[in-house]
Amino acid sequence: MAVLPMKKIVLDAMGGDFAPANEVAGALLALKEHPGAFEIILVGDESRIREELGSHGAVPASVSTVHASEVITMHDPPTAAVKTKRNSSIAVGMTLHKEGKADAFASAGNTGAMLSASTLILGRIRGVSRPTIGAFFPSLKGVCILLDAGTNVDCRPQHLLEFAVMGSLYASHVLKYADPTVGLLSVGEEDTKGSAVTIETNKLLRASRLNFIGNIEGRDILAGKAQVIICDGFVGNIILKFGESIPAFLKARLKGYADKGLVEKLRIGLVRSPLRESLKDMDYEEVGGVPVLGVNGVSVIGHGRSTPKAIKNMILRAYEVAMSQLNVSIERAVGAIASSPRPDGTSFTQQTTA
Amino acid sequence: MAVLPMKKIVLDAMGGDFAPANEVAGALLALKEHPGAFEIILVGDESRIREELGSHGAVPASVSTVHASEVITMHDPPTAAVKTKRNSSIAVGMTLHKEGKADAFASAGNTGAMLSASTLILGRIRGVSRPTIGAFFPSLKGVCILLDAGTNVDCRPQHLLEFAVMGSLYASHVLKYADPTVGLLSVGEEDTKGSAVTIETNKLLRASRLNFIGNIEGRDILAGKAQVIICDGFVGNIILKFGESIPAFLKARLKGYADKGLVEKLRIGLVRSPLRESLKDMDYEEVGGVPVLGVNGVSVIGHGRSTPKAIKNMILRAYEVAMSQLNVSIERAVGAIASSPRPDGTSFTQQTTA
Repeated sequence: MAVLPMKKIVLDAMGGDFAPANEVAGALLALKEHPGAFEIILVGDESRIREELGSHGAVPASVSTVHASEVITMHDPPTAAVKTKRNSSIAVGMTLHKEGKADAFASAGNTGAMLSASTLILGRIRGVSRPTIGAFFPSLKGVCILLDAGTNVDCRPQHLLEFAVMGSLYASHVLKYADPTVGLLSVGEEDTKGSAVTIETNKLLRASRLNFIGNIEGRDILAGKAQVIICDGFVGNIILKFGESIPAFLKARLKGYADKGLVEKLRIGLVRSPLRESLKDMDYEEVGGVPVLGVNGVSVIGHGRSTPKAIKNMILRAYEVAMSQLNVSIERAVGAIASSPRPDGTSFTQQTTA
Repeated sequence: MAVLPMKKIVLDAMGGDFAPANEVAGALLALKEHPGAFEIILVGDESRIREELGSHGAVPASVSTVHASEVITMHDPPTAAVKTKRNSSIAVGMTLHKEGKADAFASAGNTGAMLSASTLILGRIRGVSRPTIGAFFPSLKGVCILLDAGTNVDCRPQHLLEFAVMGSLYASHVLKYADPTVGLLSVGEEDTKGSAVTIETNKLLRASRLNFIGNIEGRDILAGKAQVIICDGFVGNIILKFGESIPAFLKARLKGYADKGLVEKLRIGLVRSPLRESLKDMDYEEVGGVPVLGVNGVSVIGHGRSTPKAIKNMILRAYEVAMSQLNVSIERAVGAIASSPRPDGTSFTQQTTA
C-alpha cells in the first residue's frame, strides 16, 4: 500500500482577534491530535510567530513559517485590501496555495477579504456563477449545511441552483452523506409557496438530478428535514446569526433564574454541563470554519473570535476538503448535469463522483 | 368616575385544531382571570358550544353565543373560502365586529382565511398599502415585535416603511413602550449593507420620524437591540418558525443526554422547570395570538394547536388592542407623517398620539 503524501495546510497566523497566539496554539493542537496527517505552514509576522511558537516549547518538524509583512484588518475594505496589501498574510497564504505549495488555506481573518482573495487569487471554478459560503447547522438528525450563508445577498434562481449543486457535493464528498437531501427554505411546503425567486428556484430544483425534497420551512432546519438547505445570503446570514445567538440568550436567561435563590442556583449549576453538551454543535468553536465553495482551491474561513480549539477545527475542515475530490466534482456537475432531468433513480452525487 | 362599558370580544369557537373544547375552556379561563373586563361572544356550531359550556358547569352571564353553520378548515383555500362560506364562523364573527356588535374578533383558525376576512370584511385603513401580521419575540430586554411575520412575502421599501409605522404604534399603544426603537433586519449594521430592497428601505426609515436605530443583524433579535424589527414576510416567517422550533430541539437534545444514564437523568429532571420558565416566552401558548395591523378593526390570529391557555392569551391580546387607540393613530400616521423628516427630537409616537 502506497503511503499518501502528507497534506500541507497554510494557516493565516495573523487572522483572528487573538492572533497569532490562538493561531499558533490551534495549529499545535491540530498536529498533536492528528500526527502524520498534515503539515502546517504559518504565514505572518515571522518574528512574532517564532516567539509564540517558542512559548510552547520544542517546535514540531511539521510546522514551518512564511513571512508576510502586512495584515488585512477587520476594518480594511475587503477587495481593495486584497489588491493593495500584496504582502498581507491572506494574500501571501492564498498565493502559496494557488502556486501548489500547499493544499489548502485557512484564516480567521476578515471574511470579506478571504472571499475576495479566494475569487481573485484562486479563481472561480469553470461554470460557477458565484462562489458561496456554507454554514453548518446542528439538527436532530445530524449536521446539515445551509448555503448561501451571507456572501450573495440578492440571488437569481440559477445561483440558488448552483448553490444546491455545490452543497450536495460538499455533503456527499466531505460530510459523507449518501445522496444528500436538498431542501429549499421557504414559507410553505407547497411548490407554489414562497417569494418570486423561490418559486422559480423550486422549478429548477425539481428539474435537476439533485435529491430535492421540496420546500422546507424555518422549523425544519433544527428538525433535520434536509441535509442541504438552500436560501439566499440575506436569509442565510440572518438565520445563522440568529442561531448563533441562542446559546448566549439561554445562558443569560438561566443566570436570571439562578439569581432567584440558592435552590435555583444549585439546579442551574447541575445543568450547565448537559446544556453545554447539548448545544455544543451550535457553537462556532466546534465547527471551526466554513469552506468557500466554487473556487479553484480549498479556502476555509474561521470566526474572528476563534479560540485555539476553533482554529484547530478550522484546520480540520480544510484538511477534510483537501482530502476530498470536491472541486473536480463541482466542475463536472455545475451547469452540465444539474439542470438535466434525473433519469432512473440514479443519484446526482453518484453521477458526478468519479 | 364614569364606568367604562365592558368590551365585547368575539371568539371563533370552531377555529383551532381542538375546537370547540379548547376555545370554550380558554374563554372561561379569560373571564375568570379578568372578571368585569370583557364579555365574550362564542361563534360557531351552537349546539356543540352549548354542550361544551355545559361540561364546565354554570355558564357565566358574560358569555353568549351566535350560531354559524359552517367552518373554514385548514385545507380550504383562504380567500375563496371567506367569499363562499358566508356562514362560516370566521365570516360571521368578523361581520359581527364589522357591524359594531363587538370590539374585536379572535380566531385560532385558518390564518390565510383570517387575513382575507380581515381585509375583505373590515377593510384596509386608509393609506395602508398592505395589512401585516406581527410576531412577538422574547429578548433579554423584553418582548419585541417583528413584522411582517409571513403575510407579505415580497415587499417594496414603501411597504416595509408602513410596517415600521404600524409596528411602532403597536409598540407604543399596546406594549406601552415610550418612543420604541425600530431596527431594520439586515446582514450588516452599515446603512449600505443588505439586499437592494433593504438598502432603499434604510433610506426611507432614516428620513422618517420613527425612532430608527439603523440596521440590525440576526444576533440582535434575542439580544433586544430593537423593540420593533422590520423585515419582509419571507424572512420574518422563516425566522419565526426557526425560533419556535428551538424549545423542541433543546428538549430532544436534553432527552438524549438524560438517556445516557441515571446521573444524567437526575440532572435533567432538575432542570426541566427552570428551562421551561426560561423559554416560556418563546412559546406560542404564552403569546396567544398576533394582531392583523392595518385593517379597520381588531383581528387577532392564534396558533392552530392552541391550548386553553393559548386561547385565553389570544383573547387578552385582542382586548389590549381594543382598549388602545391604535387604529386611529395608524390612520393618522401612515403616509402623512412617516416619510416627513423628524424635526426637533419630538418622537414619532408623540406626534401621532392624540
